[in-house]
Amino acid sequence: MTTILLAADHAGFALKSTLIERFQATYQPYTDLGTYTSDSVDYPDFAQRLVNAMTDDTVGILICGTGIGMSIAANRFPGIRAAVAVTPEMARLARLHNNANVLALGGRLIDAETAIGIVNTFLATNFEGGRHDRRLSKIDLVGFDAGA
Amino acid sequence: MTTILLAADHAGFALKSTLIERFQATYQPYTDLGTYTSDSVDYPDFAQRLVNAMTDDTVGILICGTGIGMSIAANRFPGIRAAVAVTPEMARLARLHNNANVLALGGRLIDAETAIGIVNTFLATNFEGGRHDRRLSKIDLVGFDAGA
Repeated sequence: MTTILLAADHAGFALKSTLIERFQATYQPYTDLGTYTSDSVDYPDFAQRLVNAMTDDTVGILICGTGIGMSIAANRFPGIRAAVAVTPEMARLARLHNNANVLALGGRLIDAETAIGIVNTFLATNFEGGRHDRRLSKIDLVGFDAGA
Repeated sequence: MTTILLAADHAGFALKSTLIERFQATYQPYTDLGTYTSDSVDYPDFAQRLVNAMTDDTVGILICGTGIGMSIAANRFPGIRAAVAVTPEMARLARLHNNANVLALGGRLIDAETAIGIVNTFLATNFEGGRHDRRLSKIDLVGFDAGA
């Protein structure tokens, strides 16, 4: 079973705790990379922690107020494909077409049940490949060009 | 008045055309970077075009099926802060907290009136600065570290 890595800032801390309770109840392996309190922290520090821990066998969940800041920070890294999703349909399309490996959630935008639906859909959907694979290759070509 | 740069793939072409009609009607300066037909293209090529054309005096709108692929591709670049938004509230928070300079829209997720509401809110909202500024600095520090 794929291990889920989780990281959040203070605005995502409560939703992260709720997701962890659910993972425990369903025997879903996870690693909690913090934050561990509701004290104010900087989301890029936690995006960095998660990116550093990602492997081919993990998926990530990053949570801030909207998911947007986390997605900007995480997508700086070649190999990371972080998708903001506020509905299960967005999570489904992010897996099907973008082979997203990180879900970026908004602790201030969605309730716990919506978040659980999004996570379950994300985990249950496989990448479609084909023409989408060519496009993903271009994303990291593009990224590497810019870094050169 | 800020010039808006627009780029889309085939799934975003129709919504881009609608936004351009609105910009013409409201005398909003814009530059249309394509695609110019509904033939299938690869969204990273159009994300790259827009990134190459961005300056401190422009904002960008990228449109694909969900906005997610475009946001992953564009956020590979330091200095680009691309926000997926499916509601005006997401656009507002992306400006207030993330100083987003690119809006990533989903031509298959939102209708034209919703998109126009999102764009208007994005353009009308200013960055809040303060603690958010420190966090944004960390995003690009992080990005540069990874590229080294």
